[in-house]
Amino acid sequence: MNQRLLKLQTWMKENGIEVSFLTSTENVFYLSGYYTDPHERLLALAVFQEEEPFLVCPAMEVPDAKRSSWGHDIIGYSDIENPWEMILTTINKRINGVSKVAIEKEHMNVERYEHLTQLFPKASFVSAEEKLRLLRMIKDAKELKTIEEACALADYAVEFGASEIKEGKTELEVLNALEYALKQKGVTEMSFSTMVLTGANAASPHGNPGETKIRKGDLVLFDLGVVVDRYCSDITRTVAYGDINDKQKEIYDTVLKAQLAAIEASKPGVTAAEVDLTARRIIAETGYGDYFPHRLGHGLGIGVHEYPSMTETNQLVIEEGMVYTIEPGIYVPDVAGVRIEDDIYITADGAKILTKFPKELQIIK
Amino acid sequence: MNQRLLKLQTWMKENGIEVSFLTSTENVFYLSGYYTDPHERLLALAVFQEEEPFLVCPAMEVPDAKRSSWGHDIIGYSDIENPWEMILTTINKRINGVSKVAIEKEHMNVERYEHLTQLFPKASFVSAEEKLRLLRMIKDAKELKTIEEACALADYAVEFGASEIKEGKTELEVLNALEYALKQKGVTEMSFSTMVLTGANAASPHGNPGETKIRKGDLVLFDLGVVVDRYCSDITRTVAYGDINDKQKEIYDTVLKAQLAAIEASKPGVTAAEVDLTARRIIAETGYGDYFPHRLGHGLGIGVHEYPSMTETNQLVIEEGMVYTIEPGIYVPDVAGVRIEDDIYITADGAKILTKFPKELQIIK
Repeated sequence: MNQRLLKLQTWMKENGIEVSFLTSTENVFYLSGYYTDPHERLLALAVFQEEEPFLVCPAMEVPDAKRSSWGHDIIGYSDIENPWEMILTTINKRINGVSKVAIEKEHMNVERYEHLTQLFPKASFVSAEEKLRLLRMIKDAKELKTIEEACALADYAVEFGASEIKEGKTELEVLNALEYALKQKGVTEMSFSTMVLTGANAASPHGNPGETKIRKGDLVLFDLGVVVDRYCSDITRTVAYGDINDKQKEIYDTVLKAQLAAIEASKPGVTAAEVDLTARRIIAETGYGDYFPHRLGHGLGIGVHEYPSMTETNQLVIEEGMVYTIEPGIYVPDVAGVRIEDDIYITADGAKILTKFPKELQIIK
Repeated sequence: MNQRLLKLQTWMKENGIEVSFLTSTENVFYLSGYYTDPHERLLALAVFQEEEPFLVCPAMEVPDAKRSSWGHDIIGYSDIENPWEMILTTINKRINGVSKVAIEKEHMNVERYEHLTQLFPKASFVSAEEKLRLLRMIKDAKELKTIEEACALADYAVEFGASEIKEGKTELEVLNALEYALKQKGVTEMSFSTMVLTGANAASPHGNPGETKIRKGDLVLFDLGVVVDRYCSDITRTVAYGDINDKQKEIYDTVLKAQLAAIEASKPGVTAAEVDLTARRIIAETGYGDYFPHRLGHGLGIGVHEYPSMTETNQLVIEEGMVYTIEPGIYVPDVAGVRIEDDIYITADGAKILTKFPKELQIIK
């Protein structure tokens, strides 16, 4: 039994849960090592307090699942078989009587829930999601290595994108060029829709990349991430195209100062709120408090938004092994939009910075 | 009240449903004309038998929703408000007592379902999905026009991709080049992951585009679709790179003959099964019956897989206004993989073909 399953089983014992029945691709992958997107078909992982766990997937996926690191039972069902009957039979072979089942309530749909409630009419159903968020929050060495690879590709994308900036090019042209460059490096998935924003677009929290042309004196904001082996990176850099004015410079310097201070503050034992407030206070002191309308950052891993949530009220204590973003921003309509974002890993000594594109203001000539 | 809402209301009256509470972006868009992806936030459309329907969305989306064609009430909620209380209050102002609620059981998650069952503890919950699939199956003039635009871009993509074929280029290189060309035309979304497959890859139903190099004498299969204003197209063409052998040619000719016959058979009054079997018999007669392992086609529209499902057992009767694919294929391991797919629209007189890239075998020199 792998460490992740053992931790889930400990939680199940503490809470009197006989079966965890998990169905999201992300959590099934996290616990089993097997990733597949079954589209509308059922994928599930059944975990028990002591007994052998099993994976349920479409029959045609079974060979792939066997080749994965999942070393336990696999149940394949064809399109003409009823997977729910197979699940009930298999569970009944392992345990007698089910009083409490853990599911992902934000993921499982009502149709499947009705099947489960028919299988276990006397059981209560609780959510496994919070527990899985807490487990996934602490990364192991292999996860860190994968995220570092994703970060290196994100650095490359920003570097390539910045090199593509030229008078009259549109946001979309620069965006398409950098994504094409990533594809040439074998990247097949971005963490989210890439943002290349300039001028007024970058200064609006609702900006979307479009046909706006880049002009001298503009700031250009890149926000993007790359998926490597199912793990996400997420970087933001804001670069200058030609000389920018003093106001733009002041905003950039303020964001950078706040960002560096929050990284410095990130270490085991402080709260997420303290880290957020470290950056927020610096921005407020310079008079831009009203122009920093979002949280400081978020955890990332298999999902691009995981725990910890770096807000000014979250009392969660930072621990070794967490990976999260530090991304303060200032958005002054018609003046400038600047955000600087790194992904960091928490060690016993403090933050290790995983994204490495330079943060001193890059001026593209 | 638009025609789509009126049809849903008629169904609700026939089935004693006081409220339809719909939450998928696709069905909310279909019925309201308003499209947004609210990510983890709640989007919902409440429809009544007679009373004013209302839309529920995040507060920051309300201005967009007002600018859409939705001419009825809109309820916006902020991140600190409870949308469920607002929903209950608004419903109670419209009707007294709810005994039956229609929801999308394959879409709604358990967490939201628990909120709804608390709001309406005495109600039963039925699925609205089958009804919406049947409504969406028949396209109106505006939908047809949008799909035609998406089909024209799909034609362009195949033409561009075929022109990129050269000795030693990989599947992924051709794929990236054609998607880049589409982006230059303003395309921001594909209907599904584009397939460019050659040689053994095309001959396997599980093939995925990769580093396989295209060589003289190969068939190259393109399967792709473009999204325009939320509507999908879907085309497959198989082209030859240089001269191909007699066996490959026989397979191509058989698929084409089956495809043309199924289009000819597509008209109001026949069943989906008859159309599928028209193609399936031709392929079986040539001895390739075992190598055509999938249904003939599927409806498409806002979704890339809609009704009708063109299987050999579906007794659904073809009607004017349907849009579906005709895509027979033959996959003989180590010999050839050929699929030819058009999107067609059913008129009173038969099929109008929406995808127009040539189907006589294209030989790239």
